Amino acid sequence: MTDILSMGELLAEIMAERVGQTFTEPGVFLGPYPSGAPAIFADQAAKTGASVAFIGCAGEDGFGDLIVNRLRDDGVDVSGITRTDELPTGTAFVTYQEDGSREFIFNIGNSAAALIDADSVDPALAGGCRYFHVMGSSLGSSGSIAAVKRALELVKQGDGKVSFDPNIRPEVLTSPVISEAIHHVLKECDILLPSEADLQYFCGDAPEREAVATLFDSHRLEMIVVKNAAEGCVYYDRTRSLHVPSFQVAEVDPTGAGDCFGGTLISCLAQGIDIERALTLANAAGAMAVSERGPMEGNTTLSELDRFIDSAERHV
Amino acid sequence: MTDILSMGELLAEIMAERVGQTFTEPGVFLGPYPSGAPAIFADQAAKTGASVAFIGCAGEDGFGDLIVNRLRDDGVDVSGITRTDELPTGTAFVTYQEDGSREFIFNIGNSAAALIDADSVDPALAGGCRYFHVMGSSLGSSGSIAAVKRALELVKQGDGKVSFDPNIRPEVLTSPVISEAIHHVLKECDILLPSEADLQYFCGDAPEREAVATLFDSHRLEMIVVKNAAEGCVYYDRTRSLHVPSFQVAEVDPTGAGDCFGGTLISCLAQGIDIERALTLANAAGAMAVSERGPMEGNTTLSELDRFIDSAERHV
Repeated sequence: MTDILSMGELLAEIMAERVGQTFTEPGVFLGPYPSGAPAIFADQAAKTGASVAFIGCAGEDGFGDLIVNRLRDDGVDVSGITRTDELPTGTAFVTYQEDGSREFIFNIGNSAAALIDADSVDPALAGGCRYFHVMGSSLGSSGSIAAVKRALELVKQGDGKVSFDPNIRPEVLTSPVISEAIHHVLKECDILLPSEADLQYFCGDAPEREAVATLFDSHRLEMIVVKNAAEGCVYYDRTRSLHVPSFQVAEVDPTGAGDCFGGTLISCLAQGIDIERALTLANAAGAMAVSERGPMEGNTTLSELDRFIDSAERHV
Repeated sequence: MTDILSMGELLAEIMAERVGQTFTEPGVFLGPYPSGAPAIFADQAAKTGASVAFIGCAGEDGFGDLIVNRLRDDGVDVSGITRTDELPTGTAFVTYQEDGSREFIFNIGNSAAALIDADSVDPALAGGCRYFHVMGSSLGSSGSIAAVKRALELVKQGDGKVSFDPNIRPEVLTSPVISEAIHHVLKECDILLPSEADLQYFCGDAPEREAVATLFDSHRLEMIVVKNAAEGCVYYDRTRSLHVPSFQVAEVDPTGAGDCFGGTLISCLAQGIDIERALTLANAAGAMAVSERGPMEGNTTLSELDRFIDSAERHV
């Protein structure tokens, strides 16, 4: 039995070296780094000790090797990843602007990453997992939505739990198909890992506690963990809440920090680690992730996280 | 009336910094550089003083801006370039191996570059040009082949000449569609710019002079210029031949040198420059192109080429 199933886009990420760099003139880019939100999540969940399987598609090219090798080397079961010579591995170029914003050029929808659908879901992998994690970023095409919906059915039949990081992006607001898919996953999910922006998408301008109460009232959710980036996280279940502050670090690259937080948290839950320690470890994983350049270059093991926690300063 | 029409793939190129670098681990890449064989050709033809128009398609993204701005800034008429938000701008990643070979990851067939077809060809641009240049690399999809064939018809109706750089790549050998397209262009072409490998593709192991004679016998060709890279070029018409040696330079990056050679040669012919000087300038342009990193970063004006020729040493 697999602890955790993750599914979705496998990407090679190429990052501008310098803040203020653009796509419209030559410069220095660093990469390719293995990336894709569900891949970062899976890699971190495996590094922290859970058994993790992945369903996705990569090209028959060097970028595909990069990602699949990384996941395999870090202990992820990659038997659910197919390779294709029909389309290249998905790519994401990113530049960092002076105001802290990022600009992207993605090739996902017309890359190997888009070649998953309901048939990509191995019933044994999905039916036999204890946790199935869904990334909002993986709900970008009809094929990937069909794959997630099929996996949800199988996971529920097998009594697995569903965790969901909505990660709402601007295009969701204009796509009824993606919006429907997000609400479908929300309806099926047991553990919700929203950002403040995600809460706002679901509940408008209501204060956090009210928004969380509304979500508990109208959904089967058993746990909501609101990610506040550098300020840590707030855990809610139906009877209590718990704020766990994060750690002071110098941010080098924010990409992947939330995915890394989620991977650590679900991994800890799957291993029976108590919630307060799990949240502390997840915060530490997010802090260590932003300290390294590259989406999963700052991924960590439990012992690395423990050493970091012992030596780090909490935000207060 | 436009001197030269060029058509085909517009690409952003991202190049490994270090020889021996791979796609399967993070490293330093330089770029994006404006690229695509027909774009390099067009840019160089415009820089050396011809009036040049381009037909192609780029994405509505930073990479598209990069390429279109560069061509416009260097004097190319970009009115025949469409922009799309349907697919991203084409990309080419390249690494250099210790043995001198290169490895590529292309996204062309599923990029904006693939979105041209017969309807992309503005009859005024094609019917009104004096030279239409075809790159073998632009014959990769049914749409681009249809576009080239349509342009050939219009150019011939307008009494324009056709130049052709076959640049035969391995996939041609297994694709009857591409092979047919190459032979179609060869049949229509007046000026052929083959490499030694291209000659071998057309004529097998025959010595160069025999191969050239065979091509003249069976085609309407008026001129063949065989590109021998660092060794210069050999010009043939139906009555004479002329070997023009190249120049000694330290090679930094071979990408684009042949395209730059062709752009200079056709530009010179369009401007009525005599053939010996045109070939010397084309050799010089190829030599200066390999001295700079980036496919069209070493593109040059006629006065830059003249200064280079005055100071350079010929290969003998």
